Amino acid sequence: MPSEFDLIRRHFSRRPRHTDLAVGDDAALISPATGMQLAISTDMLVCGTHFLPDAEPEALGWKALAVNLSDLAAMAASPRWAFLALALPAADDFWISAFARGFFECADAFGVDLAGGDTTRGPLNVCVTVIGETPAARAVTRAGARPGDDVWVSGWPGRAALGLAMLRGEIDIPDEGARLCLAALHKPQPRIAAGLALRDLASAMLDVSDGLLGDLGHILEQSAVGATIDSTALPVDALTDFGAPAERARAALLGGGDDYELLFTAAPEHRGRIVALSEHLALPLTRIGSTTAHGGELFLRATDGRLTRVPAMGYDHFHSHAPDR
Amino acid sequence: MPSEFDLIRRHFSRRPRHTDLAVGDDAALISPATGMQLAISTDMLVCGTHFLPDAEPEALGWKALAVNLSDLAAMAASPRWAFLALALPAADDFWISAFARGFFECADAFGVDLAGGDTTRGPLNVCVTVIGETPAARAVTRAGARPGDDVWVSGWPGRAALGLAMLRGEIDIPDEGARLCLAALHKPQPRIAAGLALRDLASAMLDVSDGLLGDLGHILEQSAVGATIDSTALPVDALTDFGAPAERARAALLGGGDDYELLFTAAPEHRGRIVALSEHLALPLTRIGSTTAHGGELFLRATDGRLTRVPAMGYDHFHSHAPDR
Repeated sequence: MPSEFDLIRRHFSRRPRHTDLAVGDDAALISPATGMQLAISTDMLVCGTHFLPDAEPEALGWKALAVNLSDLAAMAASPRWAFLALALPAADDFWISAFARGFFECADAFGVDLAGGDTTRGPLNVCVTVIGETPAARAVTRAGARPGDDVWVSGWPGRAALGLAMLRGEIDIPDEGARLCLAALHKPQPRIAAGLALRDLASAMLDVSDGLLGDLGHILEQSAVGATIDSTALPVDALTDFGAPAERARAALLGGGDDYELLFTAAPEHRGRIVALSEHLALPLTRIGSTTAHGGELFLRATDGRLTRVPAMGYDHFHSHAPDR
Repeated sequence: MPSEFDLIRRHFSRRPRHTDLAVGDDAALISPATGMQLAISTDMLVCGTHFLPDAEPEALGWKALAVNLSDLAAMAASPRWAFLALALPAADDFWISAFARGFFECADAFGVDLAGGDTTRGPLNVCVTVIGETPAARAVTRAGARPGDDVWVSGWPGRAALGLAMLRGEIDIPDEGARLCLAALHKPQPRIAAGLALRDLASAMLDVSDGLLGDLGHILEQSAVGATIDSTALPVDALTDFGAPAERARAALLGGGDDYELLFTAAPEHRGRIVALSEHLALPLTRIGSTTAHGGELFLRATDGRLTRVPAMGYDHFHSHAPDR
């Protein structure tokens, strides 16, 4: 296996744009702008857990960075620097160059410098750490929701889960729908522009990685509020319109992860600005419910108005046994 | 397997001391002091490559953080924040609590906050990212050595390699020596205090992780200087005094990694201050040679004055076939 230095030099050395000292010394050096807070997130993607052994390396390179940038979007932070640690079973030049191509495509799309990293031999594992900047005390956390806020979700949640179900042969979706679902799964788009624009509008925000209902639970817990989600308001049509089975689409939307859409709360007086933002970004921002004063309690309101309580723990259980499915 | 949140909460939630928002949101938030540059380093430790499957988890927790802090020491940066990504084959409560104990022992020893991380299922893999602060433009890189500088090394290089040779049953070292060699291997001490004190003295610096000669090559390359190392000046006695075979000790000192000692260059006028620093820290700082104007050329001067050239690439080859061994 070529040395760490060979691998890094050949595939991962790009001229940095806003890094004082990048790849090649004991540490990278960066100079955050005065008065900025830094937002930092780490995600580890493991072969067999987060992706299949035959995953296309270019798509994996994109996704490894994209899912980390999504965390910065959810804090309303501007992405700036990335650090890549990579364990590889062998020095496969083709694989590494494709991975690097996907990684840098994402880095370039969002203005991120690869500032440092580590390459080592081992079972395939990709660990990315990203650093973003935000004006001090202006980041949007999970803890700021207040009772009576609206609950919103960006984009098309559920597509990635449907894409995975397609790959597993569980469902069949034709043509354009199939393409969109697989793209959501393989090349998730971190909602950076939306996250930054929501800095002054959202009271709490996160990116959906484990499922909409489950992740909403984190906001409820950390904000000490409850919520009621309106089934009729969920953007299920965006999934059924291209042929996904209705119940499968609803389950994917509420319980599927991997879309990396933004889930956020905002005071009702911001509705007009959020709708205008949605139009400006050409990105759906859908109001799907509202928060309540009943800390931690999450309800789904069915078409007939009936409320079903979602257990605080065990969304998986709920997904499998909810009486209306 | 308990959810990521359970694991993090139970073992890795400690009250941070200088982190605005730690573990539990989409990203951590930190506020670097005005005018500081940040030094950032990532190291991935893989089971089977960097440690054995039966490695003692408490020692591994220490070492995973210590080897990263060593990179900050080598930049003369003050360690501040750490991020831990951990892939585990199973949620072994005993293993995780021991690992966390070792990790936090090191974090507490060096004033580091665990500010964030990720826990996932997968082959055992520990990826740590650390962030340190240094006054702007004062970090010590690998690129600042000038011809005629002295070459210095801290501590007792070679101990860790002898410890590994002991574990492999290749050599036998009695009593206190055995204890010291195993401690160097299992619980390396990042030379933070020395690194910070050398900020105004060292012209180039790195931490020895792959072997003294090999790592010196990185300074020579990036500083475009050569060097001559004086065999008689090497701190071999520190290894042979407790019973290590002489030739084995010399090979461990020149080619062994894993000690995480600092290797640095400094102008000759700083000799007095460096000797005083050594006494102040009760840490050997040994002058082992000097740099030359012959870019990239590395020579070893034997006891009889004869010079042997060390190949620019292939220190391993050199170790195996150097005529005087």
